[in-house]
Amino acid sequence: MTTTAKQAGLVNWDGVSFTKVKMTDHFWRPRLEVLNKITLPSCLEKCEETGRIANFAKAGGLIEGEFEGIYFNDSDVYKVLEGVAYSLMLERDEGLEGEADRIIDLIAAAQEPDGYLCTYYTLVAPDDKWTDMEKHEMYNGGHLIEAAVAYFDATGKRKLLDVACRLADHYDQTFGPGKRHWVEGHQEVELALIKLYRATGEERYWKLACWLLEERGHGHGVGAIWDKPEWGPAYCQDDVPVREIKKVTGHAVRAMYLYSAMADAVHVSGDPAYVDALQRVWAHTVERNMYVTGGIGPSHHNEGFTHDYDLPNESAYCETCAAIAMVFWNHRMNLLFGDGKYADVVEREMYNGVLAGIALSGDRFFYVNPLASEGHHHRVPWFDTSCCPTNLARFLPSIGQYVYARTDQGLVVNQYMQGEAEIALKNGNRVTLKQQTSYPWSGTVQLEVSPERSGVFTIQMRVPGWCRGYRVQAGGEWLSGVEALVERGYLSIERHWAAGDTILLELDMPVQLNRAKQEVEADRGRVAVQRGPVVYCIEQGDHPGLKYDEITWSAFGNLRVEYREDLLGGVTTLEGKDGNGRPCRFIPYYAWDNREPGFMQVWIREKEEDQLYKF
Amino acid sequence: MTTTAKQAGLVNWDGVSFTKVKMTDHFWRPRLEVLNKITLPSCLEKCEETGRIANFAKAGGLIEGEFEGIYFNDSDVYKVLEGVAYSLMLERDEGLEGEADRIIDLIAAAQEPDGYLCTYYTLVAPDDKWTDMEKHEMYNGGHLIEAAVAYFDATGKRKLLDVACRLADHYDQTFGPGKRHWVEGHQEVELALIKLYRATGEERYWKLACWLLEERGHGHGVGAIWDKPEWGPAYCQDDVPVREIKKVTGHAVRAMYLYSAMADAVHVSGDPAYVDALQRVWAHTVERNMYVTGGIGPSHHNEGFTHDYDLPNESAYCETCAAIAMVFWNHRMNLLFGDGKYADVVEREMYNGVLAGIALSGDRFFYVNPLASEGHHHRVPWFDTSCCPTNLARFLPSIGQYVYARTDQGLVVNQYMQGEAEIALKNGNRVTLKQQTSYPWSGTVQLEVSPERSGVFTIQMRVPGWCRGYRVQAGGEWLSGVEALVERGYLSIERHWAAGDTILLELDMPVQLNRAKQEVEADRGRVAVQRGPVVYCIEQGDHPGLKYDEITWSAFGNLRVEYREDLLGGVTTLEGKDGNGRPCRFIPYYAWDNREPGFMQVWIREKEEDQLYKF
Repeated sequence: MTTTAKQAGLVNWDGVSFTKVKMTDHFWRPRLEVLNKITLPSCLEKCEETGRIANFAKAGGLIEGEFEGIYFNDSDVYKVLEGVAYSLMLERDEGLEGEADRIIDLIAAAQEPDGYLCTYYTLVAPDDKWTDMEKHEMYNGGHLIEAAVAYFDATGKRKLLDVACRLADHYDQTFGPGKRHWVEGHQEVELALIKLYRATGEERYWKLACWLLEERGHGHGVGAIWDKPEWGPAYCQDDVPVREIKKVTGHAVRAMYLYSAMADAVHVSGDPAYVDALQRVWAHTVERNMYVTGGIGPSHHNEGFTHDYDLPNESAYCETCAAIAMVFWNHRMNLLFGDGKYADVVEREMYNGVLAGIALSGDRFFYVNPLASEGHHHRVPWFDTSCCPTNLARFLPSIGQYVYARTDQGLVVNQYMQGEAEIALKNGNRVTLKQQTSYPWSGTVQLEVSPERSGVFTIQMRVPGWCRGYRVQAGGEWLSGVEALVERGYLSIERHWAAGDTILLELDMPVQLNRAKQEVEADRGRVAVQRGPVVYCIEQGDHPGLKYDEITWSAFGNLRVEYREDLLGGVTTLEGKDGNGRPCRFIPYYAWDNREPGFMQVWIREKEEDQLYKF
Repeated sequence: MTTTAKQAGLVNWDGVSFTKVKMTDHFWRPRLEVLNKITLPSCLEKCEETGRIANFAKAGGLIEGEFEGIYFNDSDVYKVLEGVAYSLMLERDEGLEGEADRIIDLIAAAQEPDGYLCTYYTLVAPDDKWTDMEKHEMYNGGHLIEAAVAYFDATGKRKLLDVACRLADHYDQTFGPGKRHWVEGHQEVELALIKLYRATGEERYWKLACWLLEERGHGHGVGAIWDKPEWGPAYCQDDVPVREIKKVTGHAVRAMYLYSAMADAVHVSGDPAYVDALQRVWAHTVERNMYVTGGIGPSHHNEGFTHDYDLPNESAYCETCAAIAMVFWNHRMNLLFGDGKYADVVEREMYNGVLAGIALSGDRFFYVNPLASEGHHHRVPWFDTSCCPTNLARFLPSIGQYVYARTDQGLVVNQYMQGEAEIALKNGNRVTLKQQTSYPWSGTVQLEVSPERSGVFTIQMRVPGWCRGYRVQAGGEWLSGVEALVERGYLSIERHWAAGDTILLELDMPVQLNRAKQEVEADRGRVAVQRGPVVYCIEQGDHPGLKYDEITWSAFGNLRVEYREDLLGGVTTLEGKDGNGRPCRFIPYYAWDNREPGFMQVWIREKEEDQLYKF
């Protein structure tokens, strides 16, 4: 780490690949099984049905026909391939791999001799390439690169990686200092190029990514978006140079992919101007523009941000992809700065904003995630713009990467999921970790720590932001004293570890009532129920005879906490009597719209009591 | 119960005597031992040393000498005797009983031939009896009556009870319809007369109590207090007729004793005007004029109330007796109305406002209970006006009475304390209850229910107002469905009970941050930490180098919850890092000023975070 980086408060923790983490829990493990059995095959089928895969065959001249769909449809195929790759890393599947190989051959065929690859332009407007920066040419390419790196890691097969490198080289030859300008309308390629640099060691990819970041905000943007006054350059974060960013603006997914790439850039450069910009825009995003579910981007109009504290519930846009992108960004921030507040956001997204995007059945999806619905919003199997299902397809199998991180002094436990992991410390000592927990339904976590060679190192356990009270044991002893206090979201347990030593962490996981800042007009006089990381909602099916927005909740109401194995794939429900004494059931927000259609609400009207003191 | 009573929402539960409840817990049991070994003997000694006991001997002509002390000093002797009686009911002690008998002989000797008893007037101003209603003549008498009833219950000895009856008869002959008016300046005799009615069955005592209540607010008051414009009749609740009371006013202890007697009156009469007045003034007291510790009466000037939301911390008066009197009143309200919100107040007082009044050593007391101190407020062994130590002496041994109540359908568990009890249901079936819990440090309670004859009845378990989430088992099965939801503060478990059946109640007991209503100026921008029923504070001794009011607390701070057997008689401490990252320890408020002197604060300045959502 450079001196500059240290001065900027960077810790630069190492991520730990999800391939090192085997989940055996009752919450995520069943979802991954559904993903393999249902979601991935169904996404591939939809890509086939909608001509997304055929577009490659057509562009490669293997079959006749016209381009079908929208200009960014290539990206969906890449994202499903990336998901397939992650899935293969967890579990070999010859059928799935064979199908992936078949598609990769078509992709390779579609690449033009100079490396260019975007079936829309090849088939529809070959002479108009690189004329409209909003047309997602590099966005498509970015997803290709991510898929290629993943598939190479999963299988060792280079074919798609070679296609990706040729494409990246094509970009590099066409754009850059002294060459053409380019402001990619939909960011994605920047973080992909950094991945490609890491996979190949080729610094030109890294440099191109940084150049693309620096291109923004200087008036180089050209294309349909830039010409529309109601959107303008802020829509795709081309309004100010990235190092001058103060506020989150425009399209939510684009913004998050941009900040993710900036965090990647800081990881290497330690550039203090980037650090400042990231911390400013993080605060602006999380402290003024994030729903309690982790959802971001309230507006349908620009699929993004409007003005501070504008967080309407019924009309909330909260694209599933934006929640996923928040995970990408916050994970990177966590590794950069070593602060648990970023892992808190990762957790908030994982259990709420992201997970709501997919039905329990695995084959129906939300693109838009309102926090209240009168009953007409439902998941569907696919969309014309199907970025969200395909983003889930690659997000879910890789979720294990958010659990651990590696530090100079040892390791970090960021998320709690039952399973096993093997992590090599920086000194090479391999540590096997066995996590036992029924998180997110219980706050008790037992971690068995078995280093190959016993020795002194530090294990940091995250104490989530929602958790006020905790207890912790190491080696059978309750820890006390100043050394077991939480700092920047973590307990740090430095001791001599030998095989079989355990940490027992007990996080209080009470029912909590969220109240929003007064500035949030939509939530005034309302509460949102939360338990642990899980945000709750009420659904019509549990409240026969009651109307939308009729239920009230008293801050002093008592809720029976009940784990229901038979309900919604196994959920903890909260049941009590509402402000009018009527039975009332809260279910996890992520699980809504999996039964009969009906209203749903996260923010419930609060019955104002005359009590002097409120918790 | 009369039809009127039912219409007024009265349930008229039966109280269960503390003699039926044997505590075996680690919280209250040791305090009762200290009470027996230290507090009672030390109070008797102080009564001796200060001439309080000798005043009786002098008034009875047994020894020569002048009256010593203040005109209400008789009451302290009576209150200690009442405490001795309660203690004897729990455990025989020949030494203590012998000493009580000796004092009772002196008291009997001091009674004048017509039944009059008040050593101040007998010795100092025999011709001025019944001329100043503020001179506590009946207040003294009320405490005599309470002691007499208790001592008769404890020992079967009638001597003091006979003295009490003669005194009450003297009152009855002197005052009442067609006789003289009387507005007792310091209420107490009213509830005592109702006790005497219950002990003797003599309706004239009950009627006299009701007449005394009705005397108030009609301009009959005469005496020093009434003549002082800065106090006036509101000081002793003589400003309005009791059935028209809307707001709590004046001296806090007097007000609470008045409302307690009114609740006793309603218990028999069901008078809807009294019901309305009680519910109005309860809301006004609890919702606008009660500290988070349960303390009431902010002002030193009148030992009582000022204006709504006037709850200063440093200068809080919060007399220990007023907290005890809140228990008396709220216990009666709970039995009358069957609502857990009154038992919530009982609990708040028990673990905070009342308990802070006595040192862990049992021989030092607070009269005044501020919620913040710069370091100059300390418990002392005795006061010239020693109502508070002597009130604690009678309150603590009888604390078991707040645990259970009996209903038409079965029984109620109001407070959680480990121990055994035997309660006869209304149908005569005797139920043995074994409560296992480490409350207030844990919210898990196991109750073994063993009826003599198995059968169907209902057990109501209180779910405290501070508890948001709970789980409950009966007979080994988790309860679910609408029937296990909380109504008016209780879970009602109706089932067939056989010997050895158990209830397991798990109350979430997280660390909680109290915030006061905006109207409370003193607490603006501040939080008070609470866990379960226990309100916490910070003390200087745990924070070397830090100044008064320097510590801040973030709503998102994490606290390590640690039971410390070695500290302050065994307490759960909460430790974390304050808003400036400095180690910070919270201890129970009741336990403050038991170590080196220094500052103390309950309401800590809140570090304002920019977070959108707050729990």
